[in-house]
Amino acid sequence: LASEATLGLIHYISLPRAHGKSFAHRSELKQAKRIVVKLGSAVVTRGDECGLALGRLASIVEQVAMLQNQGREMMIVTSGAVAFGKQRLRHEILLSQSVRQALHSGQNQLKDMSVPVLEARACAAAGQSGLMALYEAMFTQYSTCTAQILVTNLDFHDEQKRRNLNSTLYELLRMNIVPIINTNDAVVPPPVPNSDLQGVISIKDNDSLAARLAVEMKVDLLIALSDVEGLYDSPPSTDDAKLIDIFYPGDQQSITYGTKSRVGIGGMEAKVKAALWALQGGTSVVIANGTHPKVTGHVITDIVEGKKVGTFFSEVKPAGPTVEQQAEMARNSGRVLASLLPEQRGEIICCLAELLTEKKDEILSANKRDMEVATASGCFSQALINRLSLSTAKLNSLAIGLRQIAVSSRDSVGRVLRRTRVANNLELEQITVPIGVLLVIFESRPDCLPQVSALAIASGNALLLKGGKEASNTNKVLHQLTQEALSIHGVSDAIQLVSTREEVEDLCRLDKMIDLIIPRGSSELVRDIQRAAKGIPVLGHSEGVCHVYIDSSASIDKAIDIVRDSKCDYPAACNAMETLLIHRDLLRTPVFDQLIDMLRTEHVKIHAGPRFASYLTFSPSEVKSLRTEYGDLECCIEVVDTMQDAVDHIHKYGSSHTDVIVTENEETAEQFVQQVDSACVFWNCSTRFADGYRFGLGAEVGISTARIHARGPVGLEGLLTTKWVLRGEGHTVADFSEQGSMKYLHESIPVPQGSFT
Amino acid sequence: LASEATLGLIHYISLPRAHGKSFAHRSELKQAKRIVVKLGSAVVTRGDECGLALGRLASIVEQVAMLQNQGREMMIVTSGAVAFGKQRLRHEILLSQSVRQALHSGQNQLKDMSVPVLEARACAAAGQSGLMALYEAMFTQYSTCTAQILVTNLDFHDEQKRRNLNSTLYELLRMNIVPIINTNDAVVPPPVPNSDLQGVISIKDNDSLAARLAVEMKVDLLIALSDVEGLYDSPPSTDDAKLIDIFYPGDQQSITYGTKSRVGIGGMEAKVKAALWALQGGTSVVIANGTHPKVTGHVITDIVEGKKVGTFFSEVKPAGPTVEQQAEMARNSGRVLASLLPEQRGEIICCLAELLTEKKDEILSANKRDMEVATASGCFSQALINRLSLSTAKLNSLAIGLRQIAVSSRDSVGRVLRRTRVANNLELEQITVPIGVLLVIFESRPDCLPQVSALAIASGNALLLKGGKEASNTNKVLHQLTQEALSIHGVSDAIQLVSTREEVEDLCRLDKMIDLIIPRGSSELVRDIQRAAKGIPVLGHSEGVCHVYIDSSASIDKAIDIVRDSKCDYPAACNAMETLLIHRDLLRTPVFDQLIDMLRTEHVKIHAGPRFASYLTFSPSEVKSLRTEYGDLECCIEVVDTMQDAVDHIHKYGSSHTDVIVTENEETAEQFVQQVDSACVFWNCSTRFADGYRFGLGAEVGISTARIHARGPVGLEGLLTTKWVLRGEGHTVADFSEQGSMKYLHESIPVPQGSFT
Repeated sequence: LASEATLGLIHYISLPRAHGKSFAHRSELKQAKRIVVKLGSAVVTRGDECGLALGRLASIVEQVAMLQNQGREMMIVTSGAVAFGKQRLRHEILLSQSVRQALHSGQNQLKDMSVPVLEARACAAAGQSGLMALYEAMFTQYSTCTAQILVTNLDFHDEQKRRNLNSTLYELLRMNIVPIINTNDAVVPPPVPNSDLQGVISIKDNDSLAARLAVEMKVDLLIALSDVEGLYDSPPSTDDAKLIDIFYPGDQQSITYGTKSRVGIGGMEAKVKAALWALQGGTSVVIANGTHPKVTGHVITDIVEGKKVGTFFSEVKPAGPTVEQQAEMARNSGRVLASLLPEQRGEIICCLAELLTEKKDEILSANKRDMEVATASGCFSQALINRLSLSTAKLNSLAIGLRQIAVSSRDSVGRVLRRTRVANNLELEQITVPIGVLLVIFESRPDCLPQVSALAIASGNALLLKGGKEASNTNKVLHQLTQEALSIHGVSDAIQLVSTREEVEDLCRLDKMIDLIIPRGSSELVRDIQRAAKGIPVLGHSEGVCHVYIDSSASIDKAIDIVRDSKCDYPAACNAMETLLIHRDLLRTPVFDQLIDMLRTEHVKIHAGPRFASYLTFSPSEVKSLRTEYGDLECCIEVVDTMQDAVDHIHKYGSSHTDVIVTENEETAEQFVQQVDSACVFWNCSTRFADGYRFGLGAEVGISTARIHARGPVGLEGLLTTKWVLRGEGHTVADFSEQGSMKYLHESIPVPQGSFT
Repeated sequence: LASEATLGLIHYISLPRAHGKSFAHRSELKQAKRIVVKLGSAVVTRGDECGLALGRLASIVEQVAMLQNQGREMMIVTSGAVAFGKQRLRHEILLSQSVRQALHSGQNQLKDMSVPVLEARACAAAGQSGLMALYEAMFTQYSTCTAQILVTNLDFHDEQKRRNLNSTLYELLRMNIVPIINTNDAVVPPPVPNSDLQGVISIKDNDSLAARLAVEMKVDLLIALSDVEGLYDSPPSTDDAKLIDIFYPGDQQSITYGTKSRVGIGGMEAKVKAALWALQGGTSVVIANGTHPKVTGHVITDIVEGKKVGTFFSEVKPAGPTVEQQAEMARNSGRVLASLLPEQRGEIICCLAELLTEKKDEILSANKRDMEVATASGCFSQALINRLSLSTAKLNSLAIGLRQIAVSSRDSVGRVLRRTRVANNLELEQITVPIGVLLVIFESRPDCLPQVSALAIASGNALLLKGGKEASNTNKVLHQLTQEALSIHGVSDAIQLVSTREEVEDLCRLDKMIDLIIPRGSSELVRDIQRAAKGIPVLGHSEGVCHVYIDSSASIDKAIDIVRDSKCDYPAACNAMETLLIHRDLLRTPVFDQLIDMLRTEHVKIHAGPRFASYLTFSPSEVKSLRTEYGDLECCIEVVDTMQDAVDHIHKYGSSHTDVIVTENEETAEQFVQQVDSACVFWNCSTRFADGYRFGLGAEVGISTARIHARGPVGLEGLLTTKWVLRGEGHTVADFSEQGSMKYLHESIPVPQGSFT
């Protein structure tokens, strides 16, 4: 009895809950100290091709060991002993039936032999040791000890047994050992086989065991993995089923459960019951798919890092809508926005412009709060603080820009691009329409918000805005003003501000809700988003390696002015020159000397291309790569023999952004312009003109180096797509068959400029 | 001695090479019967976050077991014992230093403690048993036995030892046991630690051991996995480094090796030497990355299935160029094609049209061969055979279609879309240019080839064609004729026929070489390609759930004609009606009865939507999903209360392809047309008009349900993008600053219709 007290009650009291109560938001799950990972039998035993899920199990062990090494206390509730035992017993029986035959056959014929019917409890007994041996072999690779705990539900009903169990588990956790818990299937009543799981005898799911244990052990987070993505609001096979991201106990009546689940005997309703029970006991719960090959690699660590995986059970319902609801509201309201008259959209934008000056005190005071926090945190550069800061002057010029967008908005949605008389009384029109729902992700600069909002309003698109955390106060006020402006025509929901807590990566996966993503920020941001966006097009460019080629017939003055402007006007811009290509004949001429002198005067660091370096006795540092975007007062110089060589160099090392020829020879220039396959090709002017405003496109949406849709500087047109409208009088294609009465005319009907439907 | 003979020489002779000589092409690797998988130390021990690569190892075991279960003979040459031992010994030493401290700390502090310097041979001895235990625990899950074989290079030099080793291995393979072979590091000279591999003591790489063993054991395929993608033609860090897909011994001089490789001591040069040695001995070799997280899951089975993974070593150099070389040739030749005059491109197309009739005997005889093979194989449906078959009539109408494309080609490349006077003497033009390199993947129908070729020529695009195997003879002849036509203007390489052996999935990954993929075939093909295409846009649509809505004010005659035409004209087409929406007021009226009668007469099977079913006493079968594309004489009928309900239904369940309203009320019609957010929205005409030819777009490229670039039926325009050309006289943006001398004018200059640069 004394030893029991030492091992049991003392620790029972001395180890309280690590966190205290369930977490309100996924982002808080990082703080979970004590975690139970529950593995359904499908996770442990149902492999893709070989019958067993070894790779999956290894990955789970890897993640659990990693979290343990971070200082968390990890426990595993496992299923699968029955299936393991079945595999093993079947093998043994077949071997004893026909040892020689099996051993000497060239192929493994065990699979094809008739399988004896096995009793589940015997399988469990035979499988448990194999399962534990496997866990141990795997955890040993991470220098992590494991311990086996077999329990039955009765162990929780007897107070003494319960305390013994708890104190054992606490002691194991204190010793940095991972307890692996399973039901003692050898002594429980025989489970009912589930005919749905072919080839695997299902055992009673361990959901209630895991939930009970989680509450007893004051666990912070229970991760329940099975073979479903999570909880759906109606049976997943139905048309409208939606995966629930966060589930609140109050929402339970809104769920329709299917009559049958593929997972063990438990089914989803039992899982939810267990989860709610654990939640009430203070443990946060996530139900997720542990068998999905694409996410398996990180499903546990992803959940702990707060990513949107599976269904998160939370007691605290946040005030606002979820991002999915926001996207839905935006799409519906956006459709109304698209159906307004162009003048009405213009009115909204002008109203927003007015609000920017009218409510400037409110805006600037919110901005001041953001600036103070950012400055105090000490983790932002001065450049970033400058981008974050707003001023009366900035707001005024913002308002002017918005009024320009209002003007150009008149000529966007509903424009007739083409009109065709297909046949008598059958007329076709192609008209511009909004793309749908845009997601704009922008960093630090809060002036982005009204600008982008105005572009969306002008083009009739719905908009989800995701700004940086550092500008959250300013963005909030600016978004409120935008909604105020939208409300004058009853479409205030068309533009939604997404919570800063939402992960960009999660947003980029909402391919059913978002039609186009526009990143506004560093090329790193753009690259990250291009990588994360699955099935949603991204408008933007991640690099700009722009060239200026100085031809042998170049004017010296133009060459110097253009190179200076292209490199030095704003070296960080994507349309700044990165590589200067010089015709060989110019080497050791005054043109060349003056170019180099100018670059030295402007403090441009020069890197030499391999050919250029070979011409020099004392060469500057040779380039590492001819594909470098310096983004600073640096550039590469390379020598080419002919205009054709320059074109080849640009095709090989360029990014198809903007490339320039400087020459007085018109024929050479036109050949260059014709041949260079870039979004912008210029003759005798600076690369820096590659810009929507300078092109006169009005508002600039961005610059695209994609080859489809929009290319180069993109104006409002890049936010539009088209729709075909055909108006007939009962026409059928059968009328146009050989026996039919009608003939195709396909007459083009002229479209007056600025024609709207 | 007798037992030696029994165990050794007899089997040595009785088990010849399974295949005979090395394979000529990746697609033949499926036949490999005896396979060695060589795992470099990086594969076995370098994990992502935890230090060990457990998940990776499990996945490798899973694949090896799977291949073994297919009846192949699998061997593993493993590294990693030293690293395993190091991990284990460090743990032991630290434990013995401070057992209590380590056990009772809440966190795992082992990682932070100073690590004693360990001798590699001791580590190897300590690690080997752990490594084997792990392999055994893992293989046991697949009922697969393993055996440990430790060898040194000396074992190969002594004839008797060599025979003993061989006979042991043969005996193990005969007993369906997987031999796991490692160097006996405990007795070999101490290897030199490689400072490049932080934290892991590198051992001499097992490349030469694996190669030697492969030749001795007459192995068909050696898969050598390390942490590089394969063999590059120059050091992978340089600008132009390209991964070599297939390497021939004769190509060796074209390779530049880096001075140092990250993998063990061996480096790439040693790996290649070992691979070539094995190849000479008759074993095919693939060098690939076994650590890449995305491919790990299937790298071994992918290689055996013939997929383009890593570098394949082949003795037989195929006659033609690789697909990468084809893409390069196509792009270069395509740039010349794009620079031709529109009339010249038209001439090429007309020449091809002539060749189709001129060389019709040659075409039809090749087609006959394809038909015979297809018919004889017995695995093609009659429908497919029909699609495969060509006739004089088909060729004639094909030639007519081509001549139409030739006409429309005049108005494609180089068209000026916009002209702006940015400032004095600074003029901007936006002109149409080809997209670049297209990949068209088409099934069975060989008439696709000249059609698509003509579209590419008309739009100045380079083209890679990938046809079905069943039409290979026909496609070959048609492609030769296309090249003949292209040669009249010296651009015969612009269109390339890709070998039927190339996997579609591999082609869809060539994102640096292909700008747009166009699938022509079943919606299954389109879906597969959309899934496989990483970073390359796909033009097409995978589903068409088109609706016809019969409004309460519909004309009965129009309703019946339009529904009949929409459903029955060609039920398999994507623009056929799938769901008929009927206004509630029409139920139990003559309109309704006549509609149902007509559908019955036409043998259309009716499925009832849930609301429709609720109105009926004896309802037809209720739909499983309102989103079904039947593609046959079947449709769903659903009841809606208002036009607005119809719009909502279409938005919720439609695929944004083509939707129709039938009504005599113009206001209702215009609201429907305005609100429905689909590529094609029609009033009082059949869904079947959604087609490029019927729209009068000339040649049809396809139908797109994407929201960006092209939407709905796509003509030649969908194969074009734009380029911005700016012509100045030395203009810089600095000239336009506040202190500058210039002002932006942004005057639009009128563009005459059909204006070309």
